[in-house]
Amino acid sequence: MSAPKVGILMGSVSDLGVMQEASKILEDFGVPYDMRVLSAHRSPSLTQDFAQEAEGRGIQVLIAGAGAAAHLAGVLAAHTILPVIGIPIDSSPLKGLDALLATVQMPGGVPVSTMAIGKAGARNAGLVAVQILSRSDTGLQDKLRAYKAAQQKKIESIQL
Amino acid sequence: MSAPKVGILMGSVSDLGVMQEASKILEDFGVPYDMRVLSAHRSPSLTQDFAQEAEGRGIQVLIAGAGAAAHLAGVLAAHTILPVIGIPIDSSPLKGLDALLATVQMPGGVPVSTMAIGKAGARNAGLVAVQILSRSDTGLQDKLRAYKAAQQKKIESIQL
Amino acid sequence: MSAPKVGILMGSVSDLGVMQEASKILEDFGVPYDMRVLSAHRSPSLTQDFAQEAEGRGIQVLIAGAGAAAHLAGVLAAHTILPVIGIPIDSSPLKGLDALLATVQMPGGVPVSTMAIGKAGARNAGLVAVQILSRSDTGLQDKLRAYKAAQQKKIESIQL
Amino acid sequence: MSAPKVGILMGSVSDLGVMQEASKILEDFGVPYDMRVLSAHRSPSLTQDFAQEAEGRGIQVLIAGAGAAAHLAGVLAAHTILPVIGIPIDSSPLKGLDALLATVQMPGGVPVSTMAIGKAGARNAGLVAVQILSRSDTGLQDKLRAYKAAQQKKIESIQL
Amino acid sequence: MSAPKVGILMGSVSDLGVMQEASKILEDFGVPYDMRVLSAHRSPSLTQDFAQEAEGRGIQVLIAGAGAAAHLAGVLAAHTILPVIGIPIDSSPLKGLDALLATVQMPGGVPVSTMAIGKAGARNAGLVAVQILSRSDTGLQDKLRAYKAAQQKKIESIQL
Amino acid sequence: MSAPKVGILMGSVSDLGVMQEASKILEDFGVPYDMRVLSAHRSPSLTQDFAQEAEGRGIQVLIAGAGAAAHLAGVLAAHTILPVIGIPIDSSPLKGLDALLATVQMPGGVPVSTMAIGKAGARNAGLVAVQILSRSDTGLQDKLRAYKAAQQKKIESIQL
Amino acid sequence: MSAPKVGILMGSVSDLGVMQEASKILEDFGVPYDMRVLSAHRSPSLTQDFAQEAEGRGIQVLIAGAGAAAHLAGVLAAHTILPVIGIPIDSSPLKGLDALLATVQMPGGVPVSTMAIGKAGARNAGLVAVQILSRSDTGLQDKLRAYKAAQQKKIESIQL
Amino acid sequence: MSAPKVGILMGSVSDLGVMQEASKILEDFGVPYDMRVLSAHRSPSLTQDFAQEAEGRGIQVLIAGAGAAAHLAGVLAAHTILPVIGIPIDSSPLKGLDALLATVQMPGGVPVSTMAIGKAGARNAGLVAVQILSRSDTGLQDKLRAYKAAQQKKIESIQL
Repeated sequence: MSAPKVGILMGSVSDLGVMQEASKILEDFGVPYDMRVLSAHRSPSLTQDFAQEAEGRGIQVLIAGAGAAAHLAGVLAAHTILPVIGIPIDSSPLKGLDALLATVQMPGGVPVSTMAIGKAGARNAGLVAVQILSRSDTGLQDKLRAYKAAQQKKIESIQL
Repeated sequence: MSAPKVGILMGSVSDLGVMQEASKILEDFGVPYDMRVLSAHRSPSLTQDFAQEAEGRGIQVLIAGAGAAAHLAGVLAAHTILPVIGIPIDSSPLKGLDALLATVQMPGGVPVSTMAIGKAGARNAGLVAVQILSRSDTGLQDKLRAYKAAQQKKIESIQL
Repeated sequence: MSAPKVGILMGSVSDLGVMQEASKILEDFGVPYDMRVLSAHRSPSLTQDFAQEAEGRGIQVLIAGAGAAAHLAGVLAAHTILPVIGIPIDSSPLKGLDALLATVQMPGGVPVSTMAIGKAGARNAGLVAVQILSRSDTGLQDKLRAYKAAQQKKIESIQL
Repeated sequence: MSAPKVGILMGSVSDLGVMQEASKILEDFGVPYDMRVLSAHRSPSLTQDFAQEAEGRGIQVLIAGAGAAAHLAGVLAAHTILPVIGIPIDSSPLKGLDALLATVQMPGGVPVSTMAIGKAGARNAGLVAVQILSRSDTGLQDKLRAYKAAQQKKIESIQL
Repeated sequence: MSAPKVGILMGSVSDLGVMQEASKILEDFGVPYDMRVLSAHRSPSLTQDFAQEAEGRGIQVLIAGAGAAAHLAGVLAAHTILPVIGIPIDSSPLKGLDALLATVQMPGGVPVSTMAIGKAGARNAGLVAVQILSRSDTGLQDKLRAYKAAQQKKIESIQL
Repeated sequence: MSAPKVGILMGSVSDLGVMQEASKILEDFGVPYDMRVLSAHRSPSLTQDFAQEAEGRGIQVLIAGAGAAAHLAGVLAAHTILPVIGIPIDSSPLKGLDALLATVQMPGGVPVSTMAIGKAGARNAGLVAVQILSRSDTGLQDKLRAYKAAQQKKIESIQL
Repeated sequence: MSAPKVGILMGSVSDLGVMQEASKILEDFGVPYDMRVLSAHRSPSLTQDFAQEAEGRGIQVLIAGAGAAAHLAGVLAAHTILPVIGIPIDSSPLKGLDALLATVQMPGGVPVSTMAIGKAGARNAGLVAVQILSRSDTGLQDKLRAYKAAQQKKIESIQL
Repeated sequence: MSAPKVGILMGSVSDLGVMQEASKILEDFGVPYDMRVLSAHRSPSLTQDFAQEAEGRGIQVLIAGAGAAAHLAGVLAAHTILPVIGIPIDSSPLKGLDALLATVQMPGGVPVSTMAIGKAGARNAGLVAVQILSRSDTGLQDKLRAYKAAQQKKIESIQL
């Protein structure tokens, strides 16, 4: 496999089912990625190392999913100039509202591009990563146009 | 001025005070932009035209701010393969919670990168646009590193 | 079947179970309708076409159901002068609160008549469509009075 | 003045500033209306009488604005087959969220077409009333088209 | 059975499981009651009649449970000077938050004594009815003291 | 002044402006009361003493207002068989939502009759106290009927 | 077993499954504890007695879990100078949001250290108790360092 | 001044007005502290260094206040075995609800003791720090008892 262009991180192994929606998109678009469990709170040094070394390894975009007081995307964003995409995960009684607010309400200066709670958000995180990479890759632009057309065709073909 | 690389859209002229936080960042980083008022609901054809023509005009990223049932970013995203960044604006009695949910909870397949409510979010939208452009522009990467360092220095220098 | 007087749209085929509450009401009142899946985000042109052509086809009212960042009703309302009725659908972890706010908080100038979240809302959307049509159809007025009387009688007959 | 076609009710005289957004729209479209203060809780019999007599007086649509545990629109809807439009008003510490939920979450069988909280909602209530009346009045249809066009032109003309 | 001292009303037969928590308390305290399904919206005249006639029938307290845009307790309170106790019921996707706000946020002048959402609230509604009746019935005061003592004893006896 | 029939407690002297809405109602109805500042958390023993001694002093109803984690009404209810009425006060950034939930969501067995947040709630607390006392005082029943009639007349007399 | 250093209280026996997360932590760290069911509302005197006697018995920290209008931690804090840790429990339809606000929004002067809703919060309550005890016990400090290292190692070892 | 026993950190200099409520308490109890501005996101290395070195410098407790996606307390907790107290600050349109959830909903293994939003929370953070230190300092225990007694006396002395 070629060197990863996207890093996919998640705060807990229980988030894997959600985060695979992101990795599946990257596979569909032929974008190599590196996927790991890294906790902002339980393995802070590993998380920081990953964030600081990502750019040097050729990674262009980071995707991070976490639940509850979801700090993972924010901690990554503190340590890199790469775009960081955050996915709030519904893993507490508050149904992901906590993770959404903890991910999206970042202070001015340290952005996290926040997606919808859960699987829809993870799929979209994969697509945003592709959109970013496509800015200097016309092959990916063509694939994004085809994806959009297929999506419309699928809606069009539904017979109730 | 050179051709715009970023489109900044807002749903109402009353959003300008917030959205200028985004344009100021782009000016600081020397990124040309095109800023307009375009309503998803009141001028839908103009909005659609802008979204569909943006890529052809050399625009690489769209930034959209709107309040209440904030559909602007989502409507743009429906009509383009460019990355779209959404800023929820606090312009209803619900304090931006409505705009946040209407912006971030996009269905799988049509992503909007959502920022914090209001000025912090607009500033970060500008930074995400720069981050995306910097992926193929080492000059912008250097400026982002300098911005990050200056931010840390500013915190460091505070004497209570 | 005669020409449809009501258009029923939904953002996803998974919304059908909810939206059939609306179509059942229209059938009970003998009102012909056209029911389709149309996504504001995944099939924006089809959605726009439907909205723009509806009035010319004799359709008098549009009903739209969507979940999450529910933009469908708002996008329809942007493209037609017909009354548009919106039904927020509970299809995200936020239990329909996102869909409710994204549907109801429309800006001044582009109204969406919003119903309750889910099946009760869909049934009521059907009734509002009948109420609107009944303004120039005394037969429907009689049926609405009978429906109201039957409802009261049903409550009255309950023995605990 | 000709016989009113729309009834505008509000739960308290302090709601007048909001509700005049609805009456201004009706005046702009030349639709006669009857506007009153009527409380679901403090003057229930008057409210019921108004609802029951409205249809006989030639009124075609009811608009009701109320705050807090906003029951006015629902009580009207219980006593009439006319379409009832509800406007949640921000008049408690909960910023209209209480009025929104108390207005929109009507049970199946008794619909209230709910608008946005506050002035935007009141303006839209006026427009929905016009849309309903326009279904059998091509003059109003023309005015609605003109209103929509003017709205778009206004957005188009904004120079930042 | 002797003449009822408490009226227990519910908006739908599906609320019975919750409301029986109230009737069980009244039975335990030997207080006769009349329990019915009455809808503020679907059977408004019956509801009004019940409220207006209750005092004359010797009823001293009304208890009302309803979900969603829960107006039942408020409508009863509009038509009687008896104390009205409201129980918000969790029967919509919003988990009873809608019913809570629609019940508790009554305007000044027309009070509803609101209990917790669901079964705990229904049990407490029964107890409040007993507390009110006990103000002129020392037998009920003794039973309330015994109930309180038994409650404490039950906690005390738990061995983990 | 005669012996108090109602105890009015508040958690802080800053709540006085709200709580005087309750005392004004009692004065209007000629009901003697005892009003004090008592904190569930800062003066727990005084609060417990007041609750335990109230019934013996001839007090028939307790009214308690508190903000934030509003425990005052619940603590009183734990120590008395008198009816306890709770008023959530808007004194934290969460606008009284915290006080509402901390007051109304009492466990089964220990009821608090909860009113609306703020002044409307305090006025209604006074009215509920009068309603309870009126169950054995026909003079108060007449005054409540007159109050209700005056309320309706006031609404009726409004000329927009 | 040696004299307890931590008191673990819960408002209901149904909270035991959550609270055992706290006791398991204490067992892992070798800290003796006393665990009981005590209700702020149903057994107020027992609760007060426990709080007032705890310090004299050598208890250094109190942990309290409760749901709904969760007052237990606050009532304990009113009666002791020991640190009190509160765990909101998800036992009402509002999913623990009520318990969270009723636990955390304590007035100035009477603190409760609030943890996350549910099991994660209970585990962390145990850890905070250990952290407090460790301030004068270097053995516990070593165990906390080992716990932290093991946590990081566990994350590090995950292979997706 | 003697070596600090408590570290007080805040995410922004604009939080100082709130955080001084904590430092004032420590001064009143004679506890030396070190107060700084440190951002989890804008100065992550400084924050990490402070957390890692605190214990070695003799600091026993950390207090951290932050608004919006408030990660400061959580990041400190990730890097130390000292007790960490978090204060959510109301500095975004969401009134501190975002900061509350981002602070309190910490995952199992990394606790943050969360206080109320704003000044009451900051004052209580100071008191919790004193409570923790008092566990091995009987002088502080006496002061805490005196503080509690004074608080009660102040309530007792209020004359309405």
